[in-house]
Amino acid sequence: MEDEEGARAIRRPGAGGRAGRPFDHSRDAEILAITLDALAERDYEHVALDAIAVRAGRAKTTLYRRWPTKADLVLAAVHAAGGPPEAEDLPDRGSLRDDLLAVIDSPWLGGPERRLAVFAGLASAARTSPALGDAVRMRMTEPYVALYRALLQRAVDRGEVASELGGKVPLLAEVIPAMSSHRLGASREAVGRAFFVGVVDDVVLPALGLSRVRGE
Amino acid sequence: MEDEEGARAIRRPGAGGRAGRPFDHSRDAEILAITLDALAERDYEHVALDAIAVRAGRAKTTLYRRWPTKADLVLAAVHAAGGPPEAEDLPDRGSLRDDLLAVIDSPWLGGPERRLAVFAGLASAARTSPALGDAVRMRMTEPYVALYRALLQRAVDRGEVASELGGKVPLLAEVIPAMSSHRLGASREAVGRAFFVGVVDDVVLPALGLSRVRGE
Repeated sequence: MEDEEGARAIRRPGAGGRAGRPFDHSRDAEILAITLDALAERDYEHVALDAIAVRAGRAKTTLYRRWPTKADLVLAAVHAAGGPPEAEDLPDRGSLRDDLLAVIDSPWLGGPERRLAVFAGLASAARTSPALGDAVRMRMTEPYVALYRALLQRAVDRGEVASELGGKVPLLAEVIPAMSSHRLGASREAVGRAFFVGVVDDVVLPALGLSRVRGE
Repeated sequence: MEDEEGARAIRRPGAGGRAGRPFDHSRDAEILAITLDALAERDYEHVALDAIAVRAGRAKTTLYRRWPTKADLVLAAVHAAGGPPEAEDLPDRGSLRDDLLAVIDSPWLGGPERRLAVFAGLASAARTSPALGDAVRMRMTEPYVALYRALLQRAVDRGEVASELGGKVPLLAEVIPAMSSHRLGASREAVGRAFFVGVVDDVVLPALGLSRVRGE
């Protein structure tokens, strides 16, 4: 809130977006990565544009000129981070468990531990700003669920999962994202890689009649 | 926001909480139920104290005297609504499926459809106010997960679920609450009783080696 008011004060008539030297766009990616780092460390309301400017070695006014509000900066960071891998780009490992663990261990958002920390920060951002909520949902959450849907469907298509269970795919594709956001809602610290592996092994696979139930 | 500022304006020095006639507490329950009705219909930010006063047939200033802010009113409504049933109060139906459906069909918060609508409204309230978030978590979410945990453990204890799967109980107790809040995050309309039954039949029971997998 203070940041946004500060930004408005700086954007006084006559100054506009074109005042001063042209913004050096070559360092956008670095600043946006620093923004995600900040969100991995603390909730959106405690992330300060000033601190990001310091970490990036830029003047605060320079940052405000490019991203007038904290919401603008985080929105740009979400777009720059991109979504999860596409199912087509993930090799078929012949096993649903291996396919799901490959998503968990993918480098998206810096791998499983940092990704969860970023998710927690983005969730706090989404709560504060509906525009950020929409962006997170469209760029991250929905493609993430779609990826699990594609991998589950692949397991049905190759005959690993019984075809009569194909109807469960849309619901089961939500289990991993739902369980992780539920845990993150309780505590940032409670979710690590082992939690995901537990959801895969103890919920998703046995729900599809694969492994682990009855000690198989 | 406007409501809270309005409330502050009314609480000017000298007026205090004791001005005017004593508040008629006999109608608290009705006003708090109307508050939950309002949250079942729209998100917290769109619930207006004025509209609740009109529905309750009370003067707005009377309401503000008892609950100075919208957050105070909703907090009181959360406390008045209470938590889900206690496991000890639910008869052992001898079947995990029947025990879980009994929770879904319990009259808590007005039964499954209204309960979901209230949850959606409370989730929006929790996003706005950390104090409300804590209250919802402590009074509702945590007892709700604890109830599922108790019922799952009961199924292990009576031998319906294999004892070696007992370690999965804490994780599986989160599945129904996690899946419903994930769906509610996408859309208020997308969750009905059938969704819960699907989560029970397609996720929770087969994850415990019970039914439905492979068309049992």
